[in-house]
Amino acid sequence: MEFVIEKAKPENRSDIIDVLAPWNLHKIPSPEALEIDFEFFFVAKVMGKIIGVSGYQLLSNDIAETRSLAVYPEFQGSGIGKELQDIRLEAMSKAGIKKVITYTDRQETITWYKKNYGYVQTGITKKKSDHGLKDVDIWTKLELDLTQYINKKTIIVRDKLKYIELNEPAPLSAYKPLIINVALTGMVPTKRLTPYVPISVNEIIEDAIKVHDAGASIVHLHARDKDGVPVSDAKYFEIIISTLRRERPELICCATTSGRGGISFEARSEVLHLSGDAKPDMASLTLGSLNFISGASVNSIDMVQRLAILMKEKNIMPELEVFDTGMINMAKYLERHNIICGVKYFNILLGNLNTAPATLRDLSHIYSSLPDNSIWAAAGLGDFQLPMNMAAIIAGGNVRVGLEDNIYYDSARTKLTTNQELVERVVRVSNELGREISTPAQTRKILGL
Amino acid sequence: MEFVIEKAKPENRSDIIDVLAPWNLHKIPSPEALEIDFEFFFVAKVMGKIIGVSGYQLLSNDIAETRSLAVYPEFQGSGIGKELQDIRLEAMSKAGIKKVITYTDRQETITWYKKNYGYVQTGITKKKSDHGLKDVDIWTKLELDLTQYINKKTIIVRDKLKYIELNEPAPLSAYKPLIINVALTGMVPTKRLTPYVPISVNEIIEDAIKVHDAGASIVHLHARDKDGVPVSDAKYFEIIISTLRRERPELICCATTSGRGGISFEARSEVLHLSGDAKPDMASLTLGSLNFISGASVNSIDMVQRLAILMKEKNIMPELEVFDTGMINMAKYLERHNIICGVKYFNILLGNLNTAPATLRDLSHIYSSLPDNSIWAAAGLGDFQLPMNMAAIIAGGNVRVGLEDNIYYDSARTKLTTNQELVERVVRVSNELGREISTPAQTRKILGL
Repeated sequence: MEFVIEKAKPENRSDIIDVLAPWNLHKIPSPEALEIDFEFFFVAKVMGKIIGVSGYQLLSNDIAETRSLAVYPEFQGSGIGKELQDIRLEAMSKAGIKKVITYTDRQETITWYKKNYGYVQTGITKKKSDHGLKDVDIWTKLELDLTQYINKKTIIVRDKLKYIELNEPAPLSAYKPLIINVALTGMVPTKRLTPYVPISVNEIIEDAIKVHDAGASIVHLHARDKDGVPVSDAKYFEIIISTLRRERPELICCATTSGRGGISFEARSEVLHLSGDAKPDMASLTLGSLNFISGASVNSIDMVQRLAILMKEKNIMPELEVFDTGMINMAKYLERHNIICGVKYFNILLGNLNTAPATLRDLSHIYSSLPDNSIWAAAGLGDFQLPMNMAAIIAGGNVRVGLEDNIYYDSARTKLTTNQELVERVVRVSNELGREISTPAQTRKILGL
Repeated sequence: MEFVIEKAKPENRSDIIDVLAPWNLHKIPSPEALEIDFEFFFVAKVMGKIIGVSGYQLLSNDIAETRSLAVYPEFQGSGIGKELQDIRLEAMSKAGIKKVITYTDRQETITWYKKNYGYVQTGITKKKSDHGLKDVDIWTKLELDLTQYINKKTIIVRDKLKYIELNEPAPLSAYKPLIINVALTGMVPTKRLTPYVPISVNEIIEDAIKVHDAGASIVHLHARDKDGVPVSDAKYFEIIISTLRRERPELICCATTSGRGGISFEARSEVLHLSGDAKPDMASLTLGSLNFISGASVNSIDMVQRLAILMKEKNIMPELEVFDTGMINMAKYLERHNIICGVKYFNILLGNLNTAPATLRDLSHIYSSLPDNSIWAAAGLGDFQLPMNMAAIIAGGNVRVGLEDNIYYDSARTKLTTNQELVERVVRVSNELGREISTPAQTRKILGL
């Protein structure tokens, strides 16, 4: 809630009395309450109207007593009371006060002062007149070591934010900018299936630039020969990556090391030997064998390890591909053996016939099972692409999108789409949630590239 | 994929040969294949281009042999082959054929015919020339009882759709229209907190009409007295509901029976005794006791049962409120005792400090634990409202939204919002996913009202 806190002015007197009235603290002056000294009072305003008040009075050079902390009942829980307390503590500290005394007759207020500020209870005293709770005739006396509190305060605040970041779901913990990774081409779509899939080196470069400008920070690259057949020859990747370095220097280039065609380690790893401008920032690493509809994709433990070790040697970040829960074990195994370390980037790919289904339950189970220090993105096959992308946006994950996984704009399959359109839709959905899009430079920082 | 299947024409001959070539089935005429008889051939076209073919030839009055089912390799898995087979079976059936013979040399094709059509293998025969797979020199002979297949087919199709509906996540199973339920007022927001919360009877009616027109089909109603204090007096609900019956007859009116103020069964149930036009369609039923930040909300087992029994007597559908997993037990208990039955409508409310948190994991765990025949909506408190609404939209659930749970448009809390704006945003997000919005009339049908 937006509110401002200001020093009180004499003309605020009747508004202040109004705020105190629901709490029966408004009889001023009285045996319980001296006249208001506006020098030591604060008011909280929402849309210009006074809805809260706090004050204090000096008892000696270094001891003060608090007075009249109150907000209208319907503003309780909004954090305004806490700010009114904080501001008067700060003012007292600046005035050289070392000890603060607070009297209250409410059990929940006693809990609040103890929990939030570290007050200790030092005694009780009898009320002199009708003030505060009608059915309680004593004040509980609380004392705060103000010097100690002010010294510890900055640490307390920092720790609390860290705690929220680690323990609370977004948006209570702040959303990090959304990383968009686009699988532009893949191995399956052909020009006959969709005219929009980029096949030639030039088409892939053009599409990469378009999705970059639409908000993507990573492109997941496959190459095709002149007949559109998937190839692993490094020469294709060399042209694509070195051109993109010139055109969009910050864009992160991730090369596939897919073995879907049943090819050798040497063929799969050819792209990892590119150097200079043509060296990929990242390379895909599928963490196990699985069935696609078109056939098995074989990634033996030995193959996965050899690829991961070579990526480590070449300082290329693995794009860890997870199709089911067991594949997470392999990431942990590689980390245990120091083959991968630091920040890990996972793509969770859901909705294949024979691997984990595209449900919120499966997705949340998988992302909750990832090792510490993991960044993750969700991808869905075909019709599941958009739902899984949206789920990742909500959950604080990231997005893999693109024609590799899905060639249609709609689940009725009436409209073929483009990589750019797919990215634009992800950006729109993220904007509805108020979540920002990560720039390539931000993504490089997040991933430690 | 959009494709059309047509009867072949003589001018299609070379296109048909092209489709057969990748499969080495194009040597026509040859000892293995007679010249094409266009009378008995079909072609499949995508964007005007022939990409698939199937045919058959008559062997006798009631026996036929299939010929040349093929699609370009990159169109495999698109369902076109299946349609080409279906259409020729239908044509054969119409021509009086009772038995179909099919020869193939591919193991996966044999599996496909057996799995999808119930073919049985009846023999093998040696190839007469180079046709089909180079390294296989026999044809496997398959036979189909066409009469039986055609008779069973409609049932098979229906069962398959039913199976998908019950077992596959949306959008593989079709999304049902999205039911939007708006909690307009609640018990907490005041005019001082936000000028947009409808408090008076007239304001509530106006807001209900606005959200109806924006896409809502249920309004969850609380009443307030002239000072804005929550009240359970039936007279307020009487005016609101009977006016809405006149203004928007299909809109579903759900009255609160909340006991948040600690009020009696008689007070909570007053609204259930309204009759005629003023009778609510639904009434809230919180399925257990819980802590809000402002205090405990006490709903003893006895209280919940008495309210549920009265709703049953009055034929008012309960709006089952679930704040944590244990509350689902109470729904099952009530159902076991026949106090609730048939279609059940659940609101899953997440993100309170002391009840289930607003994460995909908790939401999916809770909705997966609901009894059969349940419709559910997700609500999130404060900043969690939009993420939980979006999660429900993805997962095939429904939405509870409104100022009762959240008064801000953005999680940075810079902009106060209206019920109408909140509904409009939900509609936009649902539209991005291609999911339709349920009209009040559709919702009445779904809920059996």
